[in-house]
Amino acid sequence: MKTKTIPGPKAMRVIGTMKKHAYDSTFMYSLVVSHGHNCIIEDIDGNKYLDFTSNIGACPLGYSHPDIIETLAQYASNGTYKIAGQDFYCQEHADLAENISTILPEGFKTFFINSGAEAVENAIKIAYKKMGPLPGISCTGAFHGRTLGALSFTFSRPVQKHNFPELPSKRIKFCIKDDDPEIDAAENILKENKAAFILTEVIQGEGGYNVASKKFISNLRKIATKYGVPLILDEVQSGIGHTGKWWAFEHYNIKPDIMSTAKALQVGATAFNKKFDPGQRSVLSSTWGGGNRIDMAVGSQVIDVIKRDKLLENATKMGCILKKGLLELVGKKGVTDVRGLGLMVGLEFDSALRRDKKLTELFKHGLLTLGAGQKSMRIIPPLIITKEQINEGLGIMHKVLMKT
Amino acid sequence: MKTKTIPGPKAMRVIGTMKKHAYDSTFMYSLVVSHGHNCIIEDIDGNKYLDFTSNIGACPLGYSHPDIIETLAQYASNGTYKIAGQDFYCQEHADLAENISTILPEGFKTFFINSGAEAVENAIKIAYKKMGPLPGISCTGAFHGRTLGALSFTFSRPVQKHNFPELPSKRIKFCIKDDDPEIDAAENILKENKAAFILTEVIQGEGGYNVASKKFISNLRKIATKYGVPLILDEVQSGIGHTGKWWAFEHYNIKPDIMSTAKALQVGATAFNKKFDPGQRSVLSSTWGGGNRIDMAVGSQVIDVIKRDKLLENATKMGCILKKGLLELVGKKGVTDVRGLGLMVGLEFDSALRRDKKLTELFKHGLLTLGAGQKSMRIIPPLIITKEQINEGLGIMHKVLMKT
Repeated sequence: MKTKTIPGPKAMRVIGTMKKHAYDSTFMYSLVVSHGHNCIIEDIDGNKYLDFTSNIGACPLGYSHPDIIETLAQYASNGTYKIAGQDFYCQEHADLAENISTILPEGFKTFFINSGAEAVENAIKIAYKKMGPLPGISCTGAFHGRTLGALSFTFSRPVQKHNFPELPSKRIKFCIKDDDPEIDAAENILKENKAAFILTEVIQGEGGYNVASKKFISNLRKIATKYGVPLILDEVQSGIGHTGKWWAFEHYNIKPDIMSTAKALQVGATAFNKKFDPGQRSVLSSTWGGGNRIDMAVGSQVIDVIKRDKLLENATKMGCILKKGLLELVGKKGVTDVRGLGLMVGLEFDSALRRDKKLTELFKHGLLTLGAGQKSMRIIPPLIITKEQINEGLGIMHKVLMKT
Repeated sequence: MKTKTIPGPKAMRVIGTMKKHAYDSTFMYSLVVSHGHNCIIEDIDGNKYLDFTSNIGACPLGYSHPDIIETLAQYASNGTYKIAGQDFYCQEHADLAENISTILPEGFKTFFINSGAEAVENAIKIAYKKMGPLPGISCTGAFHGRTLGALSFTFSRPVQKHNFPELPSKRIKFCIKDDDPEIDAAENILKENKAAFILTEVIQGEGGYNVASKKFISNLRKIATKYGVPLILDEVQSGIGHTGKWWAFEHYNIKPDIMSTAKALQVGATAFNKKFDPGQRSVLSSTWGGGNRIDMAVGSQVIDVIKRDKLLENATKMGCILKKGLLELVGKKGVTDVRGLGLMVGLEFDSALRRDKKLTELFKHGLLTLGAGQKSMRIIPPLIITKEQINEGLGIMHKVLMKT
C-alpha cells in the first residue's frame, strides 16, 4: 500500500462526489480504479491490488491485455461507435455473432443486448412468445438480474425484490445433492400445471457459487423435453470460460433450448435454438443491441484469445490449485466449505459477519475478493492468472483468514 | 452512391452473416456502417449518407467529433474499462454524476445503468419501493423499453408485447390537445384507486413524436402531487438536448419526481429527487452500472460540448428551419402533418405503406430517416447539424416525397 490510509486522498474526493450526486449504496470497497495490468488493479492513489474478482467475470483477460489494447486503439480513431443495434448493421455485430456460433450448440442464433439482465429478459421473452404468458419455473437462491422480469425469477436476497410487483412464478429447490428428496419438484409442478419455461443457473453466481447436482440438471433437461417446456440456462456469470469450459452446462453433458450470457463477453447475449426463433419482425429489439461496436469487438477478441492461449485449460488447472489451497482452510476459524467449478470458487463461512470482516481485511492486505450468497466469499480471478499469482493470493488468504 | 446496387458487395456479406447467426429482424436498411464524420455516415462500400437519425439520438455530436475522438484516445491505452459499476468506483462515474447534476433539477441524485430500458426499470423500482406493488399509470402510444417491467407500461405496437405477461397497469390517453375530453383520466383513476406512479413521456418517441398538450402535463403534475403519487418522466429519447432544452419537460415548466434518460448520454441514467432515495443498501444494482468507463467519459464530454458550443440554441434554430421546410409538404402527396420540439420532428403520412416506401426511397437518395408510430417518419438529426445540411436534407425530401 502506498497511502497511509485506505481510501487515500484522491479516492476520498471521488467517493465524496459519488455520495453527493449518485446512488452509491452498492459499493463494496473504497477502491477507486485508475488502471491495471495483468491481474493487478491500481487505484488512483497508487495502491496496488491482486484481483481475484475480474469484476465478477467481466474482465476475463485481466487488465491492459495487449490484444485488447490493440482493439481499443483501432476504435480510438473511429468516432462512429454507438451506432450498433436495431437499425444499422456493422461488421463487429456480424463478427461477434459468427464468432460466438463457434462455441454455441449447433443451430443456435444470437441476439445481442446491453447487459446480463437484458439477456435473461430476452431469453424469457423468447419462451413466452412460444408458450404464452404462463408462470415460469426457477430455483431457490437463483439470481437472474435486476430488471423486473428477470427479478421475478430471482430468489437470492429479499432486499433485491422487496415491495416490487412480480410476474407469475413457481419456485423449486436448487438441488446440490443427487439424493435431495426435492429433486423431482419440477416434474410435480408440470404434472399439474402448464409453464412457460424452466430457468436456472447450473452454478449459482450471486446465490453463493452453489454447484447443481448432476442428477438435478439432467432431470430438468428430461422433464423439460417430456412436457414440451423450454429449458433456459443462465450463463451470465459462468459463461465464456470461467468454469474451465465455454459454458458451465458442458460439465453436465446437456444442452439448453435458450440461454443467456454477458459479463466476460462484454455485451449481453441471448442465444437460442433456431426452433425458438420468434420469426416475426420486431418481437425483440434494442437501440444499442450489443452495447456498442467497441464492446462487440472486444467480446470477439476475448473469444479469440481464450482459444489461442488455451485459457479454458488454464482455468481448469488454476482452479484446481486454488481449491486445493483453500481446502486446507476448511474446518478452521469459521471456514466451513469450499466448492466451485474451474475458476469460480466459493468459500463458505459460519456467519455473514465473519465473511464481511474477512473481505475487508483481504482488501486491506491487497487482495480483492467479493461476497456472494448469505455468507460465502466469491473468488473468480481473470482466466489469465498464473500459478505464482494464485499462490500469492492463497498466501494472503491463509494469513488473513487464519487470524482470529 | 459509389456502388451500383445498395447493399454493395461488402455489405451483402455482413448482412448474410447476420441472417445466418443473429436474430436480425429489426434492421431497417441494408446499411452497414463503417465510419462517419460530422453528420455523414459512410458504409463499408464507400456510400455516403446524410444522417437525420443520430441513431435515435444516441449520436448527438454526429460522428468523429474531435472532442469525442480525443476522449476515446485517452482510453485506448487504459485496458481497465469494463470495471465500473457496483463494486468498484472510478473517476468517470463520479464525474458524470457531478456533470449531470448541473443540468438536473436541484436536489436530484443519479443511478447509472446500461440502457434506456434499464433506466425506466430503475425509475419504477424506486417508485414501487416507496409505494408498494400497486398498479402504475401510463399512456396510450407510450414506449418505455423492451424489458418486461418497462414493457408493461408500453402501449406502442402490439408486436412488442404479444404473449408476454405484464405487471399491473392502468392506461390513460396521451392527450395532445388542451380540450381533450379525457384530459382528467388520471385523476378519475386516482379518486378510486391507489397507484405506484404516473409514467409518461412529454414527447412520445417510438409512439410517433406526439407532443403532449401543456394542460395534460401540468394536470398530471398537479394530480400526482395531490394524490401523493410520484410523477416519472421518461426522457430516454428526448433528454440531453434534442428538443432544444436539456429536458423536454422544461418546455412545460414542471419537474418530475423521478426520471429516466439514456441515448444521447451514452449510458442509461435514473435520476430522482432525494426524497425518493431508496436509502437501504443494494436495493438497486448492476455489475456494469453505467456501461463502462468509456461510455461514462463520452457522456460527460457530450454534456460539456453541448454547453460550450451552445448546441441547445442550435437545436432550436435548426428545428425551426426544418419544420418550416417540412410544413411546405403538408397537405400534398399523402403528407398530413408535421410536429415536434426542436430537432425531434415527426412527419405524418396517410398510410404506413406510403411512409415505408418513402423511407426506403430517401435512403436510396442518401438521406437517413426512421419510422415511428403507425405512419410517422422520425427526423432527429445530430445537434451539430448546420443550416446547409438541413437544407440539403430538405431538398432530398422535397424531391422524393413530392414524387407520386
